[in-house]
Amino acid sequence: MLTEWRAGFQADPVPQRRRAHEAWLLEHLRRHGRASRAELVDATGLSRATVSALTADLLAAGKVVVTETPDPGRLGRTPQSLALNPAAGLVLGLDFGHTRVGVVAADAAHEIVGSATRPYPRSTPWETRCAIAVRLARKVLGEQPDAALAAVGIGIAGSISDRPAVVEAIREAFTAAFGVAVRTDNNARLAGLAESVWGAARGTPDVLYVRLSSGVGGAVILDGRVHRGRGDTAGEFGHVCLDPTGPLCRCSNRGCLECYVRVESVLAHGGVTTVAGLAEALDRDEPRARAAVTEAGQRIGLVLAGAGSVLDVATVVLGGDLAALREHLVRPVRQTLARHLHPDKVDDVTVRTAELGDLDGALGGVALVLHDPSIAFTGPLSPRHLPGSA
Amino acid sequence: MLTEWRAGFQADPVPQRRRAHEAWLLEHLRRHGRASRAELVDATGLSRATVSALTADLLAAGKVVVTETPDPGRLGRTPQSLALNPAAGLVLGLDFGHTRVGVVAADAAHEIVGSATRPYPRSTPWETRCAIAVRLARKVLGEQPDAALAAVGIGIAGSISDRPAVVEAIREAFTAAFGVAVRTDNNARLAGLAESVWGAARGTPDVLYVRLSSGVGGAVILDGRVHRGRGDTAGEFGHVCLDPTGPLCRCSNRGCLECYVRVESVLAHGGVTTVAGLAEALDRDEPRARAAVTEAGQRIGLVLAGAGSVLDVATVVLGGDLAALREHLVRPVRQTLARHLHPDKVDDVTVRTAELGDLDGALGGVALVLHDPSIAFTGPLSPRHLPGSA
Repeated sequence: MLTEWRAGFQADPVPQRRRAHEAWLLEHLRRHGRASRAELVDATGLSRATVSALTADLLAAGKVVVTETPDPGRLGRTPQSLALNPAAGLVLGLDFGHTRVGVVAADAAHEIVGSATRPYPRSTPWETRCAIAVRLARKVLGEQPDAALAAVGIGIAGSISDRPAVVEAIREAFTAAFGVAVRTDNNARLAGLAESVWGAARGTPDVLYVRLSSGVGGAVILDGRVHRGRGDTAGEFGHVCLDPTGPLCRCSNRGCLECYVRVESVLAHGGVTTVAGLAEALDRDEPRARAAVTEAGQRIGLVLAGAGSVLDVATVVLGGDLAALREHLVRPVRQTLARHLHPDKVDDVTVRTAELGDLDGALGGVALVLHDPSIAFTGPLSPRHLPGSA
Repeated sequence: MLTEWRAGFQADPVPQRRRAHEAWLLEHLRRHGRASRAELVDATGLSRATVSALTADLLAAGKVVVTETPDPGRLGRTPQSLALNPAAGLVLGLDFGHTRVGVVAADAAHEIVGSATRPYPRSTPWETRCAIAVRLARKVLGEQPDAALAAVGIGIAGSISDRPAVVEAIREAFTAAFGVAVRTDNNARLAGLAESVWGAARGTPDVLYVRLSSGVGGAVILDGRVHRGRGDTAGEFGHVCLDPTGPLCRCSNRGCLECYVRVESVLAHGGVTTVAGLAEALDRDEPRARAAVTEAGQRIGLVLAGAGSVLDVATVVLGGDLAALREHLVRPVRQTLARHLHPDKVDDVTVRTAELGDLDGALGGVALVLHDPSIAFTGPLSPRHLPGSA
């Protein structure tokens, strides 16, 4: 996109080009949280001198701040990183799971300023879920009384295109409560986005993310963005067919990946009742547990190899309940991917388990909003609001 | 991308916004060839009044012309379509196949102004192929002596990332001969791009294109753009694994789609020696030919269903030698796709054979250049050069 912006400005006068360059820098910081001047040079293709001049002006204008605190996700970083002014505003991310809601509040500099989760029974109607979530979000925000809220990003378990009424109810509840823009997406996709921004695949623009729980979903991240698809259902790794004569799937097709590798199937196959029990059995190298996880990993790897060949992506993150099996699951997935991707690609194969834990979907809601350039931060941006200035 | 451009300009003054709006209109015409004002309204999200005012100015400036000639690809179009001024310049598209080169010259209004093909033996070295192609391109261009050449887009059979030396030799030969920008890509991907712009999938932003000849390659078109992948190898449908214990593939893996559905395998399975012979056998409903094509179609459909589930794309174009089997091949592919895509998607499934014939790759070279905003048309653009103006 940067290339196209740049091209669009080729014949334009200098002030306009300067504004465009500024916009690239701000967009990069907004998407990536913090960056050194050298990283901004790499990301934008601008010269060191241009980046220095522009960042000096952005610092003076209070749009950008120098952040000295170490980024917990990136060890060894030089302290002279820049970020958007955190006073520009806050973003809320929420994740409605089947039995709990998670909330995260983050500022424009990608700092998490608060988080909480609240359980509810699986049968809870959406109206009640929304009321619980709004109260929880208010509590998290209440700890930051002076900050302006810019937007809310919300993840929902299951397909969002199937349930326009649920999406509408959630949008209405949050618009009424907070009066800001509300964005929604499937929470597996948001979890994948969060892993690509802050988690196991940070810094990798193209990622295949598979969430392995009771359902098997996922996300395709291309060039740092969630690929949604025309019908908003992209990322359905769970419903790739492995065997046209296989067992009947809940989607009414046959032999889908989900039939074989949903957590209940793998546990039953392994002769255990919990993922923790399976992990223990694997640590003891019990043959039945090992066979169950090896076969699941091979099936997951085969589906990912197919997607990887078509998309030329070799970075995989495994999330959801089965991610707790860590290397036990990673190994057969990696071996299978390496066996079925083009031999030229084998050196690029990277398979990791997710890193962000239970708040992954809510963090993805934050990323959804930070990556949406139509959402503006409305908070104070003048120099007097800079932290440390009188 | 338009959304992001728009968002980037939200706070900008009116003249800058106006230039941005103009750029969207020009980019749309450059990518799509010709469009009515109503189509420009749809594509840009601008108001009718804004589009009318801008197009009036662009017409007066000679950047855009009214085109009265019917678009051969789009029947029933109203005559008041707009296009970039064809006098802005020409684009060359070339396709280096294993045994011939194809050349197409088109103007900025997407009108084909010349084309030619020349055979060469399979053993011809690249230096000689380039010399043949440059001569042929000069001949095609010679018929348009006054037009300025803007750029050359070139397709090459096989992977381009594997063969940097070949790509470099081609670039050098064409840069030396024509002194303009040269872009290269795999010719199966370019054929897919051309089908999505002018052929069987025109008007469809997301397309899975599979080319079924001696090799099985393809293209993934997302949002009107070729998805290339990090290593520039995206679209390798032929090397998706169908059976880990299957036959050894030339890529050194096992059970790849290409092993089963490359044209030689299908012909052997069908007991015939040519695609024309296979088509005749199918017309006579010979069981062996029918089984060969049904099985091939099912395998192709299964691979496409997997990619379709992951990407949420249900539009498929089948190209290459086997496309001559038309509905005989389309039927099993469509049935298999419909069986394995999510039931919600089944109504969206569209499977067609390619429409552009032998020049598909060269046309894709033209599209590659027209879709690259870093390439500028340099030809005369003042009103006195408008066709019909004195």
